[in-house]
Amino acid sequence: MNQKTRPFSPGADGMLGVVHKVLDHGEVELCDYMGTDEQLARIARVSTGSERQDTGILGFLVRHKHTSPIEFGKLVLRVKLPIFLARQWIRHRTGSFSERSMRYQPPLNAVYVPSEDYCQAKMSTGVKQGRGATMSENNASWVRVEMRASARGAVDLYEELATPEDHGDTHDYPGLAAELARSVLPLGTYTEWYWTTDAHNLMHWLKLRLDGHAQKEIRAYAEVVYQIFKAWLPALAEAFDTYVRASVTFSAKEQAALATTGLNASLLKPGDHGMSAGELSEFAAKLDRLTALADDNQKAGGGA
Amino acid sequence: MNQKTRPFSPGADGMLGVVHKVLDHGEVELCDYMGTDEQLARIARVSTGSERQDTGILGFLVRHKHTSPIEFGKLVLRVKLPIFLARQWIRHRTGSFSERSMRYQPPLNAVYVPSEDYCQAKMSTGVKQGRGATMSENNASWVRVEMRASARGAVDLYEELATPEDHGDTHDYPGLAAELARSVLPLGTYTEWYWTTDAHNLMHWLKLRLDGHAQKEIRAYAEVVYQIFKAWLPALAEAFDTYVRASVTFSAKEQAALATTGLNASLLKPGDHGMSAGELSEFAAKLDRLTALADDNQKAGGGA
Amino acid sequence: MNQKTRPFSPGADGMLGVVHKVLDHGEVELCDYMGTDEQLARIARVSTGSERQDTGILGFLVRHKHTSPIEFGKLVLRVKLPIFLARQWIRHRTGSFSERSMRYQPPLNAVYVPSEDYCQAKMSTGVKQGRGATMSENNASWVRVEMRASARGAVDLYEELATPEDHGDTHDYPGLAAELARSVLPLGTYTEWYWTTDAHNLMHWLKLRLDGHAQKEIRAYAEVVYQIFKAWLPALAEAFDTYVRASVTFSAKEQAALATTGLNASLLKPGDHGMSAGELSEFAAKLDRLTALADDNQKAGGGA
Amino acid sequence: MNQKTRPFSPGADGMLGVVHKVLDHGEVELCDYMGTDEQLARIARVSTGSERQDTGILGFLVRHKHTSPIEFGKLVLRVKLPIFLARQWIRHRTGSFSERSMRYQPPLNAVYVPSEDYCQAKMSTGVKQGRGATMSENNASWVRVEMRASARGAVDLYEELATPEDHGDTHDYPGLAAELARSVLPLGTYTEWYWTTDAHNLMHWLKLRLDGHAQKEIRAYAEVVYQIFKAWLPALAEAFDTYVRASVTFSAKEQAALATTGLNASLLKPGDHGMSAGELSEFAAKLDRLTALADDNQKAGGGA
Repeated sequence: MNQKTRPFSPGADGMLGVVHKVLDHGEVELCDYMGTDEQLARIARVSTGSERQDTGILGFLVRHKHTSPIEFGKLVLRVKLPIFLARQWIRHRTGSFSERSMRYQPPLNAVYVPSEDYCQAKMSTGVKQGRGATMSENNASWVRVEMRASARGAVDLYEELATPEDHGDTHDYPGLAAELARSVLPLGTYTEWYWTTDAHNLMHWLKLRLDGHAQKEIRAYAEVVYQIFKAWLPALAEAFDTYVRASVTFSAKEQAALATTGLNASLLKPGDHGMSAGELSEFAAKLDRLTALADDNQKAGGGA
Repeated sequence: MNQKTRPFSPGADGMLGVVHKVLDHGEVELCDYMGTDEQLARIARVSTGSERQDTGILGFLVRHKHTSPIEFGKLVLRVKLPIFLARQWIRHRTGSFSERSMRYQPPLNAVYVPSEDYCQAKMSTGVKQGRGATMSENNASWVRVEMRASARGAVDLYEELATPEDHGDTHDYPGLAAELARSVLPLGTYTEWYWTTDAHNLMHWLKLRLDGHAQKEIRAYAEVVYQIFKAWLPALAEAFDTYVRASVTFSAKEQAALATTGLNASLLKPGDHGMSAGELSEFAAKLDRLTALADDNQKAGGGA
Repeated sequence: MNQKTRPFSPGADGMLGVVHKVLDHGEVELCDYMGTDEQLARIARVSTGSERQDTGILGFLVRHKHTSPIEFGKLVLRVKLPIFLARQWIRHRTGSFSERSMRYQPPLNAVYVPSEDYCQAKMSTGVKQGRGATMSENNASWVRVEMRASARGAVDLYEELATPEDHGDTHDYPGLAAELARSVLPLGTYTEWYWTTDAHNLMHWLKLRLDGHAQKEIRAYAEVVYQIFKAWLPALAEAFDTYVRASVTFSAKEQAALATTGLNASLLKPGDHGMSAGELSEFAAKLDRLTALADDNQKAGGGA
Repeated sequence: MNQKTRPFSPGADGMLGVVHKVLDHGEVELCDYMGTDEQLARIARVSTGSERQDTGILGFLVRHKHTSPIEFGKLVLRVKLPIFLARQWIRHRTGSFSERSMRYQPPLNAVYVPSEDYCQAKMSTGVKQGRGATMSENNASWVRVEMRASARGAVDLYEELATPEDHGDTHDYPGLAAELARSVLPLGTYTEWYWTTDAHNLMHWLKLRLDGHAQKEIRAYAEVVYQIFKAWLPALAEAFDTYVRASVTFSAKEQAALATTGLNASLLKPGDHGMSAGELSEFAAKLDRLTALADDNQKAGGGA
């Protein structure tokens, strides 16, 4: 009798069905998965016949962007999130979504209102807006009151538009179709979906969404998804940390600068090595991160 | 000297840069394209070496779902549309979008408010809502007033939240980041994007979005896109009409019914041939369409 | 403690690790999967909130081509197959392959030689070749002898080219790189890969590869994959049989013909309803299948 | 009257219809394209409203991997190439292929036989084979004779198998179906296809196929495709050179090493900063390239 079971990940099994809270009403839940570190390494071995250990193989795949074997790892997440984030998320085309339809169902009764913390923090990353100063508590509190009131007004209007009223005469109101009534709801309204993607595209998503340039709200989701990823595929997640998340890429111009002035970008001015002011400041930021990383490494005793 | 020009479609050239108006503030514009009927047929011929004429080849490809050569036709559209429609549109993953970002730019100053016509018409297709009756003019007018007021309120709040105020003291308001302020805007807010896809995926999109089950608003866009498609690739569009748009597919159960009772579904009851009540009514609708199509054909003199 | 297990399919579990033999040296093995009928139905329900039973939902999804929820079912197959089939298989782009590399590993020591049966059977489907007559046993036997000899010659040459020879002098032969030596191997050489795809794309693959127009060799693989699919997702597989595999699609022209002459295509001649001779013979074949299907249904007691 | 023309690239127009020769029988021809540097920049601007110049925008997009606007550039190539290369090429899934079918057409009468140069050169990159020594002219000549004879034998057998023979009696040979006879042809047999992809995926393809680790034969194709790319989109190609092709990525470990020992990898030994011997040699190679790049830059007067 051939009854077998699939390769399983103890870490992922421990996460199944756990509902992680995000923002004020958001949720992330691991619903299903396929593949383990060992299984992905096994699938990679068919190609080159490599005799390396699993960890070595996974590191090699990630380092050299041999993505096919990594695409054999799959997961399913259930996510509850505001629509303006859903619109960012769905830009990732490699994967499938099954989303609550507001043509056939009423909206979820939840609209995102940022905590004071989030109102304030936003200012630092607001690219073309804000004055670099932190928003006062009073201001943040006012923002929250206004947003909550606006949300309530929109939800009430939705209800009013969508609900038929029977006056027993020709003034009956038949109700506006849900697909049309929804257009008054704010972009902060929560939606819910199942998402499936593979481990390679998940890492790509994580790289973009954990990044400091990503909106703070989606980073909150990314942090949770990252914890799930680490529990599920610990060896692959370590390779991701080392070779992707903490990696730095230098352009031809930056390499010329590196070879000439070493790690000291402060000696450079716009125009050197053909770099614009923008490129120069990106270069300086990379060198800062690099030095910080090295310091961490030193302290952790990982040095030469 | 080898200077050549690309194959071109006179119909598409006539459409380039024409801004088609849709709904109250919507726009569709053909910005670029690649491929012609003749070019797609030529590309198909490399496979089988067929000596058929272009029209015959294109018909064969569409009929037999040999989609690869059709994927060599590409177009670029600029579209201005409400966000709740953009959310449907982007579900089509095969293609690319370049969309106005409300993180880096203020929103377009336009929110969708349905015409009375659209308020009323919606009722007939509203799946779980409405009473089958048409909405009165008074009611529709009230709906529009409410939606317009709600939109204005949301846009005003956005402005208020996003605009810094300098009081010269500690009560300065630094402005909320645009990426956060946008969450109060309604789903009816217009956005703008460029979309590129190929002729095969465009036909798939058209089939779904021209369908009677699609939301009336997206059908309005689909009608415009369909006109562009017909101008661009007239022979392929004719194959699409004949073999895709007006085609009907019968399940195994429906075929058994057809072979037994012919085109008369009224003789059947749920349970016959294993059909549920839902399947039976779908079957009846197919037969109605088929008969109507045949009548049209008869009148057009296309009969045997 | 939250330790849970994933939804599992008893039928798929019974298949895990079973090596199915195909052709002379081919193999198909289910290595992993994600999703069950119940799980796919659950994921679909988030969209419409439907209260139908699982089977009803799956049938609805398949019938109306709502493919997203079906894409949440995934499987991993290990397949050993001749390269000329691998070249057909990989045309299906939605999925991932991890294949044995002949740059880094020697080829599998196996080349496809068709059985007499396959030599003969091919004639009936050979589109532009053969005389409709069955090949004699003698002829088929000769074909096999020739093909086997040719394969052996090529494999021997590969060995000779790729193996360094040390003569202790300047006549040393360093061996040709494997990536170059492989070019002498025949297209019948076996390769091996892991393939992952989702249940929706698997159904599309099965529809094309189970079809009578597919090459007999790939149909042999498709039959095995179909058995695995049925064991894994029995309710979805039944929907596939009813609504996809045994379905028939009629063009606008064919519908006009149907409405006029019913199920009797023999009354039609080329030109009627705008049909070419090719279309007419396709139409007749569809009606034959439809009638045969109805007869089966009748015998099985499924009639009205 | 609105008759307009599409944005066009003078460089690409100059390439249209030019047949570039590759290897012994290979060909690459630009057949069609869509998009120009200016058009891609315009499409990108809708997102952020940037007022940078075209070159600045394209550089930014490439540097920050904002790929969507770049996907609006499309091209069509006709390529004639040996099947073992076609098998590598088609691994790139984002794009469409229309290929000559050997089920419906006889094979092209051309099989790849490497020049002496290619026989010899292969040795240096042969990963697991060869002795590091260059193959002698005699040996290379022998290789070519053997490969040519083997190819001829296979092609002759194909003809023999596929050709019906009418002896006017029961010994008639009906011919083997082409789909089966092709299995005796070598992997070096040429095939022909049209390929369409977008500028983003083309750059990804170029990065992989121009790389020193790619098989020399496919690099020969990549060099031609690269020339076409440069003629078509000169500003994007320059960004590709600077930010992609000549870029270098350092892992967290390598950054720690850089910060500690600067550009001198010779001071490191396996185990330092957690680097394996393999990683260390990859690191050394990166530093060598970096230094060489800087020297080039210096000579070209691009230095600080």
